[in-house]
Amino acid sequence: MTILDGKKISNQIKDEITAEVDKMRERGEKVPHLAAVLVGNDGASLTYVGSKVKSCERVGFESTLVKLPNTTSELELLNKIEELNNDEDIDGFIVQLPLPDQIDEQKVLMAVDPDKDVDGFHPMNFGKMALDMSTFIPATPFGILELLERYGVETKGKHTVVIGRSHIVGRPMSILMGRKGFPGNSTVTLTHSHTKNITQITSQADIIITALGSPNFLKAEMVKDDAVIIDVGITRVPDEDRPKGYRITGDVDFENVSKKASFITPVPGGVGPMTIAMLLKNTLLARERHRNKTEL
Amino acid sequence: MTILDGKKISNQIKDEITAEVDKMRERGEKVPHLAAVLVGNDGASLTYVGSKVKSCERVGFESTLVKLPNTTSELELLNKIEELNNDEDIDGFIVQLPLPDQIDEQKVLMAVDPDKDVDGFHPMNFGKMALDMSTFIPATPFGILELLERYGVETKGKHTVVIGRSHIVGRPMSILMGRKGFPGNSTVTLTHSHTKNITQITSQADIIITALGSPNFLKAEMVKDDAVIIDVGITRVPDEDRPKGYRITGDVDFENVSKKASFITPVPGGVGPMTIAMLLKNTLLARERHRNKTEL
Repeated sequence: MTILDGKKISNQIKDEITAEVDKMRERGEKVPHLAAVLVGNDGASLTYVGSKVKSCERVGFESTLVKLPNTTSELELLNKIEELNNDEDIDGFIVQLPLPDQIDEQKVLMAVDPDKDVDGFHPMNFGKMALDMSTFIPATPFGILELLERYGVETKGKHTVVIGRSHIVGRPMSILMGRKGFPGNSTVTLTHSHTKNITQITSQADIIITALGSPNFLKAEMVKDDAVIIDVGITRVPDEDRPKGYRITGDVDFENVSKKASFITPVPGGVGPMTIAMLLKNTLLARERHRNKTEL
Repeated sequence: MTILDGKKISNQIKDEITAEVDKMRERGEKVPHLAAVLVGNDGASLTYVGSKVKSCERVGFESTLVKLPNTTSELELLNKIEELNNDEDIDGFIVQLPLPDQIDEQKVLMAVDPDKDVDGFHPMNFGKMALDMSTFIPATPFGILELLERYGVETKGKHTVVIGRSHIVGRPMSILMGRKGFPGNSTVTLTHSHTKNITQITSQADIIITALGSPNFLKAEMVKDDAVIIDVGITRVPDEDRPKGYRITGDVDFENVSKKASFITPVPGGVGPMTIAMLLKNTLLARERHRNKTEL
């Protein structure tokens, strides 16, 4: 059994990006600049945005954190996005979700310039992804592809089962695993809340990608021998023995499933760290595209 | 066993559209106007475009056929598309595929104004579809949804297996059947040329949608009792007994599979006629959107 070590691989990727940025600096070029918009004071969101900004520093990117109060109106947020769209210095930006109730999330995501949409959430980018065109792939699915690639996990002709059909993980993942190329060329089954006989389906899978947010959902008896297990679940489970009062738990009963798996991601330290690394990679990509555009 | 009668349903839909157009005319409004661009003299393409134009007449739409020579350059075609994008009188248009070798198909599809893209092939529309937003759904998948809906075929919690991952049928179909709502909420497996053990997979399916173009591929022993069978295959098989020298054959061994199926589409007369009906429906939709936009 091999652990798919997201922490290690994400550090490798960050080192590679750092080296790229160093070269940019040496050539006297502008370095990538990522902005993050945070509306309100949600604890988890603060943590996520905080580590995104910190990661920018780690690789030598410029970063800007735009903090807006919880009472921000939709129009105010849209105006801020328009400003970021037009700011030549910003290569890419993200709007941290979820947003307060008074703001229509879809309207906001639609307002982001697709060329700066490093989260890959804009329908234009999502459609390009689904139609095999080059684009920004959403960070979490992109991170999973990268893990599979760097560990040389065979995906062609394998049966991949994706659990959960969210816009940011399950659905794009199901599309990506069935595309041509590597990683890809899998037979893909997408399951969700209406799926019956889930155990029958997961038991046939060569690769299982679970993004449910339901701690210890995937048990050993649901998995066949030598399956590849990717756990995208991140749930805070109360735990008095931990200093923060909780621990992070995935969708997989790691202790027992890992005994059967050929490859498996731990939680934490698997998919999680990859997500930020791929956001940085998308930002680097955005910078390169903007440079090429300006040169044309 | 019930035949999913695409010919009958498509005529119903055309009657419904005709009634809508009549109302538009009575109110003194502009009626929908579809344009079709045909490059070259491919026999099948001529037939397809011809029946699209004829269908426009049938429902009272205006139509324009733009015929360009086989030697048309990419730039000439892009200029023609720009012209159609800017023509206020045209509500929607299609570019008949395939295009001659000197023209990059992707570049052409990207040039179509998404608001006039009644084929639903533009990444913006494809992405909206995949993200559950309202948009133009590609005509063939849209036609299949409509058939399932009008015959009240239950899809929720069913296992749908899609065979073939083309951009215009297999991939969008796999996405649509897994979306929320009806028809949808299926557990969906997308299979393709790299899929192993296809029989094992189809044998478990409640609904099979095959879009391979491989005559009589799906045999009775690959199908479980009471399965729903949707045949998107259209292959011309040489047949001296027919006046045209060929007959149209689907992917399904209809004679034997129909004995086990609960619902099944014939070929011809199943999905085929639905495709044109849904193109008309998309054009009507485009007209309504343009009117609402102008009124705003």
